[in-house]
Amino acid sequence: MTRVCWACGARTDDDSRVRCDCGEPLWLETDPDSVPDSWPTSVESMWDVLPLLGVPAPDVPAGLPTAAGGTPLLRTDSLDTEGVRVHVKPEGLNPTGSFKDRGTAFGVAAALERGEHRIGTVSHGNMAESVAAHAAAADMDCTVLVPADIADQRLAAIARYSPRLVRVDGDYGRLYYESLAVGQDAGVRFLNSDAPWRVAGQATTALEILTQFANRGGGSPDALVLPVSSGGHASGTWQAVRTLTEAGLLEAAPKLCFVQAAACAPIAAAFARGDDTVTAVEGGETIAYSIANADPPSGGRALAAARATGGAVVAVEDPAIERAGKRFAAAGLAVEPASATTLAAVERLREDGVLDDGDEVALVATGRGFGDAGAAVDADRVDLSALGSLFDAGASR
Amino acid sequence: MTRVCWACGARTDDDSRVRCDCGEPLWLETDPDSVPDSWPTSVESMWDVLPLLGVPAPDVPAGLPTAAGGTPLLRTDSLDTEGVRVHVKPEGLNPTGSFKDRGTAFGVAAALERGEHRIGTVSHGNMAESVAAHAAAADMDCTVLVPADIADQRLAAIARYSPRLVRVDGDYGRLYYESLAVGQDAGVRFLNSDAPWRVAGQATTALEILTQFANRGGGSPDALVLPVSSGGHASGTWQAVRTLTEAGLLEAAPKLCFVQAAACAPIAAAFARGDDTVTAVEGGETIAYSIANADPPSGGRALAAARATGGAVVAVEDPAIERAGKRFAAAGLAVEPASATTLAAVERLREDGVLDDGDEVALVATGRGFGDAGAAVDADRVDLSALGSLFDAGASR
Repeated sequence: MTRVCWACGARTDDDSRVRCDCGEPLWLETDPDSVPDSWPTSVESMWDVLPLLGVPAPDVPAGLPTAAGGTPLLRTDSLDTEGVRVHVKPEGLNPTGSFKDRGTAFGVAAALERGEHRIGTVSHGNMAESVAAHAAAADMDCTVLVPADIADQRLAAIARYSPRLVRVDGDYGRLYYESLAVGQDAGVRFLNSDAPWRVAGQATTALEILTQFANRGGGSPDALVLPVSSGGHASGTWQAVRTLTEAGLLEAAPKLCFVQAAACAPIAAAFARGDDTVTAVEGGETIAYSIANADPPSGGRALAAARATGGAVVAVEDPAIERAGKRFAAAGLAVEPASATTLAAVERLREDGVLDDGDEVALVATGRGFGDAGAAVDADRVDLSALGSLFDAGASR
Repeated sequence: MTRVCWACGARTDDDSRVRCDCGEPLWLETDPDSVPDSWPTSVESMWDVLPLLGVPAPDVPAGLPTAAGGTPLLRTDSLDTEGVRVHVKPEGLNPTGSFKDRGTAFGVAAALERGEHRIGTVSHGNMAESVAAHAAAADMDCTVLVPADIADQRLAAIARYSPRLVRVDGDYGRLYYESLAVGQDAGVRFLNSDAPWRVAGQATTALEILTQFANRGGGSPDALVLPVSSGGHASGTWQAVRTLTEAGLLEAAPKLCFVQAAACAPIAAAFARGDDTVTAVEGGETIAYSIANADPPSGGRALAAARATGGAVVAVEDPAIERAGKRFAAAGLAVEPASATTLAAVERLREDGVLDDGDEVALVATGRGFGDAGAAVDADRVDLSALGSLFDAGASR
């Protein structure tokens, strides 16, 4: 699979290359002529829509969970905001609870096809669980590099799949680059957030949304809204939309809108300033910690994706994220704060005029965050013998 | 929807009745003549297979998550055990992380169709989250009765959806019966574990497995293995298999095998003794706490289901459950201990001669149990500057 630079167009057939000599990330070359001329009629997993990307699909090895993707697209009118009609893609329904399974599944399949059996990743969250689980399923050697101060509960969640877990002291941001170099030397395939294979897998989120819209006879959405951290998922989304537009299956690209937590928003800052490149920031604390990437390796590509499609990159504050999370829960959807940012962003995008009244917008709820339930909760208390009093007039809310 | 007693055959059109005058639980009357004469070609949600049950399908209201069911059937050869070929139905991929969403979705849809807007449940686990989430999505009034000593974390997980939460002091086993009486008086629909509507929804687990087997050209499985607690899911499974056999779509019923944790195994004890009825036990502690039901309200029906299909009800000890959980994780599937019982059961069922060499068996992994990750974990530690040493010869496992 040829890799190409989104920025300067340089190409390479070296499967181990992740970044171009110009410094920007590579992605797989797509062939719009190989894209089928109609939408798949059913979406049971990501493999049903992958042909729409115009890249060679790796064989799915037996033993690998084939369940990544195939998440529904929910029309949730209770989340409609200021005239914008909201649809939700609940990525928490993936095998390990997040969108990361799509990229991991592609990466693991592609690695196995090349006879590689050693993989790794740099993550202390969703991606770590996803890579460790898929490695276990495929019986591969797996190394997960985590920050030295990782919380016990997170470490335990990853440890269930028995990867080699390594706490790394030092600048966690730099670890992304270091791991690529070390991995290349040692023959360990690092499936980091914007590895070309991972990006191709992540493209299936958008491919599914667009297919599901088309199958409802509803044309295509006006915009997609995703949280952005490293920029890998944003990149895959752009890759999907570009290819389908070039192939002629999609008439117009939806606006790609990305959202960051205000405490750590280097891409949104660059967008607001009109910069072409993303400058690293000193990140602060946020409840949406899983997207707090102060130096996003695919930040420039995400920025370009938003601009090229008439979208935007915005930042939202924690209180707005919290309110949005409650609105999701009230619609029956428990999502992690990183995902709740998307609903908070709709308000901002409406104010900024990026979204219009009557727009159809798909929010990508990237993960479910079951572990994020808070602590103390108030509850009534009653004795079994007095149960009948529960529903006395006025006692029920 | 007419309700009928599985044991004595009595019928009633009273939608509020859950149990027969004979004491046994009712379920919905099925009409095998209304079952389609071929399998659905795609299974995107439970609603695709529900017609196979031969009961009137309620309208799915807008706003209700339509995502319940549609979970894949995974062929996982690494879980093959003593010649038995293992398939896994990962029910943790349901909207709130467990099989309970199927029954809740049916119950909520049926209630709304009748103009009911007040529902409740007795649960401190998966069912509580499921009912609270669906009630939130459908904008219904929801009461969840939990034991007074419920763990904070569990309470918080349920509270996210803002139901009315009530801690109840007293015998939690009796609460099942009391809630039905109180609910009937107060006009609150209690969707407990074996409510007829819930059982009909739970039947879709088996309907999907059988459809997925048929669509693979693989005939039908030799056995289904499920954890059993109240007996509601077991009942729905039997209802599915009976109806499909009567309708002629299924040539032979798979053996229905149910498993309990040894510390609290009243149905397995009755099965072993050859009893026709289940006697309540004094339950002990087990890691599979979510299936520790000492006085299962549909125990007799589960017992009958196992006997009628040539299956069995077995009990497995905690160490075996723990080992099975590790095997699931090593196959890339994190499941809660209650679900791990199914794999532990395969060994027992093989020893007992219920399962044979070469049998195709589907295990129902009822929930994912993300919250169950343990605490202290060992991990290597390295400084970023020494990262290269990680993969020195011999250092990698």
